[in-house]
Amino acid sequence: MVKKLSENERINRERRLRVTLHREPADTVLQNVNILDVHSGLLFEGGIAIVGHRIACVGEVSDLIGPNTTVIDGGGKTAVPGLIDGHIHTYESHLPISEVARGFFRHGVTTIVTDFYGEAVVRGIDAIKASLEEARDTGLNTVFILPMPALYQDEPFVHTGTIDLAVMESLASWENCHGLNECFVKFLTQGESRMVKLVDAVQESGGKVCGHGSEASENEVQAWAGWVRRLDDHEAISGEEALSRIRSGIHVIAREGSGVTDVANILSYLLEKGADLRRVSFCTDILSPVDLLARGSIDYCVRLAIGLGVPPVTAIQMATINSAECHQIDHDVGVLAPGRRADILLLEGELANFNIAEVLAAGEVVARNGANLKERAKVQRPDFVYNTVNIGSVSRESFVVPAPAGAEHVLARVIGVGDGTIVTRSLERRLPVKEGSVQPLVEQQINMIAAIDRHDGSGRIGTGFVEGFNLKRGAMASTYNPHYQHLLVVGADADSMLVAAKECEKQGGGFVVVDDGKVVAQVPLPLYGLLSEASIDTLGQQIEAAFSALRELGCPLETPFHTLAFSGLPISIGRLKINSRGLVDVWKGETVPVVLAAN
Amino acid sequence: MVKKLSENERINRERRLRVTLHREPADTVLQNVNILDVHSGLLFEGGIAIVGHRIACVGEVSDLIGPNTTVIDGGGKTAVPGLIDGHIHTYESHLPISEVARGFFRHGVTTIVTDFYGEAVVRGIDAIKASLEEARDTGLNTVFILPMPALYQDEPFVHTGTIDLAVMESLASWENCHGLNECFVKFLTQGESRMVKLVDAVQESGGKVCGHGSEASENEVQAWAGWVRRLDDHEAISGEEALSRIRSGIHVIAREGSGVTDVANILSYLLEKGADLRRVSFCTDILSPVDLLARGSIDYCVRLAIGLGVPPVTAIQMATINSAECHQIDHDVGVLAPGRRADILLLEGELANFNIAEVLAAGEVVARNGANLKERAKVQRPDFVYNTVNIGSVSRESFVVPAPAGAEHVLARVIGVGDGTIVTRSLERRLPVKEGSVQPLVEQQINMIAAIDRHDGSGRIGTGFVEGFNLKRGAMASTYNPHYQHLLVVGADADSMLVAAKECEKQGGGFVVVDDGKVVAQVPLPLYGLLSEASIDTLGQQIEAAFSALRELGCPLETPFHTLAFSGLPISIGRLKINSRGLVDVWKGETVPVVLAAN
Repeated sequence: MVKKLSENERINRERRLRVTLHREPADTVLQNVNILDVHSGLLFEGGIAIVGHRIACVGEVSDLIGPNTTVIDGGGKTAVPGLIDGHIHTYESHLPISEVARGFFRHGVTTIVTDFYGEAVVRGIDAIKASLEEARDTGLNTVFILPMPALYQDEPFVHTGTIDLAVMESLASWENCHGLNECFVKFLTQGESRMVKLVDAVQESGGKVCGHGSEASENEVQAWAGWVRRLDDHEAISGEEALSRIRSGIHVIAREGSGVTDVANILSYLLEKGADLRRVSFCTDILSPVDLLARGSIDYCVRLAIGLGVPPVTAIQMATINSAECHQIDHDVGVLAPGRRADILLLEGELANFNIAEVLAAGEVVARNGANLKERAKVQRPDFVYNTVNIGSVSRESFVVPAPAGAEHVLARVIGVGDGTIVTRSLERRLPVKEGSVQPLVEQQINMIAAIDRHDGSGRIGTGFVEGFNLKRGAMASTYNPHYQHLLVVGADADSMLVAAKECEKQGGGFVVVDDGKVVAQVPLPLYGLLSEASIDTLGQQIEAAFSALRELGCPLETPFHTLAFSGLPISIGRLKINSRGLVDVWKGETVPVVLAAN
Repeated sequence: MVKKLSENERINRERRLRVTLHREPADTVLQNVNILDVHSGLLFEGGIAIVGHRIACVGEVSDLIGPNTTVIDGGGKTAVPGLIDGHIHTYESHLPISEVARGFFRHGVTTIVTDFYGEAVVRGIDAIKASLEEARDTGLNTVFILPMPALYQDEPFVHTGTIDLAVMESLASWENCHGLNECFVKFLTQGESRMVKLVDAVQESGGKVCGHGSEASENEVQAWAGWVRRLDDHEAISGEEALSRIRSGIHVIAREGSGVTDVANILSYLLEKGADLRRVSFCTDILSPVDLLARGSIDYCVRLAIGLGVPPVTAIQMATINSAECHQIDHDVGVLAPGRRADILLLEGELANFNIAEVLAAGEVVARNGANLKERAKVQRPDFVYNTVNIGSVSRESFVVPAPAGAEHVLARVIGVGDGTIVTRSLERRLPVKEGSVQPLVEQQINMIAAIDRHDGSGRIGTGFVEGFNLKRGAMASTYNPHYQHLLVVGADADSMLVAAKECEKQGGGFVVVDDGKVVAQVPLPLYGLLSEASIDTLGQQIEAAFSALRELGCPLETPFHTLAFSGLPISIGRLKINSRGLVDVWKGETVPVVLAAN
């Protein structure tokens, strides 16, 4: 929302004015660069003078070098604005904000729009404030918007109680809250009262509403667009959907995240139609540390767009000024001009290669040739971020699905999962019964699955079966599960599952792989049960090791913990899911029994 | 600033939602058009459904026709958004807002950004509120911004006292105030305290700051841009200035007004450089009723741009969405999409001709083929808008410039004026003395000039000489004079001037032409001494008649009252000016005597 300037900002503003008027030397002078002005789309030679964390002036700046000025020779490189990720849930990178920032910086991302909803599900408003506090000194411009998924969680099934309407209303007018995230199209068109209230509250505070427009009809999209002042949507998955949203006045944030690749679909179509791309930008939404390390972030989107035929300057506009305009932060970021944050990338070679040699965030060089320059900060975190996983008295028997008396086989509902989609299927399979319990059929790829409440030690557990993980033996467990953050377990047998669940609890959350009764891989995520304390590189290696261990067990999935996470999101995307209240028929919106019939 | 929705707006929003969801018929359905989506730059066939004064949906709308729905057949015409004038002082069209709106509608302008500063100089905050009240039911979207010229007026020389900092501060947070107008570059860079305070106040209320960047250095422009959150400038007069402003993050509002033609200079240069025009839009600033009738408004800018080589869709974007984005009103106007105002132009024939066949403002058809459809509204105005001209006890002698005792000739300062510029020159001329008074030299084009305070009947008068009006006999008087609204008189002799001044006072302000002691033309502007009660067409004829009368007297100027007006603006643009305290050396910022020496 609109902020008053602090005393410090006022002092800096005065000092910056004097530098811009060439009356005082700058803190930092970047010389000898070709500056891309994303407003005009033109390049011009010169330099950039910086005061504090903002740009004082551009152009002729060599006279602003004083005895204490840091001078950077740009060596004729091209200076472009830092990139903006217009929609990301950082917790899904399993890193706290200070460490994920290091990953972003390697790839030129200096601004993110985020909601900390995962953290908020576990520890409420305290988690949000602690995360923003941790973000503050990173140099990463962290634009916070209201975490609507933390308000709704998995209603009507489960809710942690950490966030309610009153808390959200208090945040809506908070000066550090920039808007509202995930305005679900149907919630608004159906008049869900909390959504309507919060959209109004945010807009009356001058805030921005970010949308979530999946699975909506054309009429619903237009009704949604017509209600909200300024709307964006990161859920368009085809060119047709994207164009329909643009025509409705909605800014399209083309997504290229882990497990979702929408950019090529959207841009190919818009290019073919000859559409202006001024209302299109980029986001990752979900970005696993493995993908962040391997292929990058918004820089990858820029290169992808150029590869599809988008002119390089246009692609860079999409990743900078378009995104800034979308989020109404174009006065602050997205362009290299006086008063804006000194978030600057130096590109080497052809613009079309988008080869980032150096990254400045908030006026400081933070990365060079893909490597961080600053040491990892030692962050002192409050106690409440730890010890958040408590599954209570869960035993081997907790995982077992009882069979109807006397049955030798049953016809059972089975969740079907696969690669490249988080849409689950609802299958029916004939499963054997042994000692009164329905058995998995490992040879037919059918494993047991369970969702355990891990917030309050209630021991509440939902159990069922899943096809597609194909664990021939052992088990996997995870506390990463959008909207509620259950502890989810898949396994070939109940004993392995118990070991995996217990170990997962013991390490404070994260990922665990068990083989032959022993832990063979683990990724501790002790912060909220969601985030690692390791470096991004170590975390990446740990996750790769866990993937290897799962492949040893027979799992063919590319990102098994991701697939597992969304198997436990019972309120959208897919047909049959699980949570700690049991199996859920997503379309009906109700829990359903595992066993259909004795058979 | 950010507004809460009224109860009525809430009800309309609900009703509009139902229409957009195709559950209820619309108020108006526009069928069979090609809709230009200015976001994507693409055309698509379909219709537009309207509820109240807003668009409910676009595309397939034929099912939204009910028994009470007004149906408009677009006949295959192209629908584009209503045009936006990004910076205009409507009082300089000498019409009250309800009547100037009729002129705008004929030319497709449905939104203006304006400050009512002329009215405010005369009658303060009451004049602003009365003007906005009058605007309310016109259908013209009137975006009000703080009238900074009314705060400063002609300080340090004269000030009416109608507006002070406290009043401006109260307006800054008013929900009907959208921002601040004319943020003068040097005032900000020099830290003028009222400007700094009001810029902060407006920005802290979420408002927009509109700039005034004439005669500033590159460093000053950057310092100004770096101080204000989002800035625009309508004062760039060359392509180089425009590009320098764009690079500083400033939105350029290219001006094409009466007496100022910047669009061709700016666009030719930007086109040559291959610049993106996303941060360029149009304004008129000052638009005389004669020009408005003869050539149009922003529609003329669009045609001019297309003629210069700007692609038609880009030119239309400049006049609509670019302007809306500049002023942060793109959620409300500038695009044909759900929730936006139903301000729609229907174009006939080639897009490149920009031939406006029909104009809808706020959901109603207001003009067709350049003619208004609605009768002139009968407006009941408060008493305070009348009887604002009181020159006190002015006599023939008041106009006389006394000579030093015994002098037969003097060397005198003479204001030099001419066509095509409002920059005056400071001339020195040898003038004869008769009966102790300095005499004009009509045969050498030198007339007498006077500026009379007309606000409080003080009889205060400044006198001098002017070259360029070339009145061979008679006189002209006017109460139109930016920033202070003096009564200005130019004449061949003091007697004619007195008749002109007295008649001007009698008619409550306006323009008067006197020949042979008689009034030969008059344009009464009885509202604030600035605005006519006649129709725009009548006013246009009256002004043309006054021009003819002046040409009879020998005046060669194209727009003599405009030239006269700016001869009396002592604080900017030009070298020598006049006000009721006397001649002013503008560069020195002080009054100076007329007579330099006996000679």
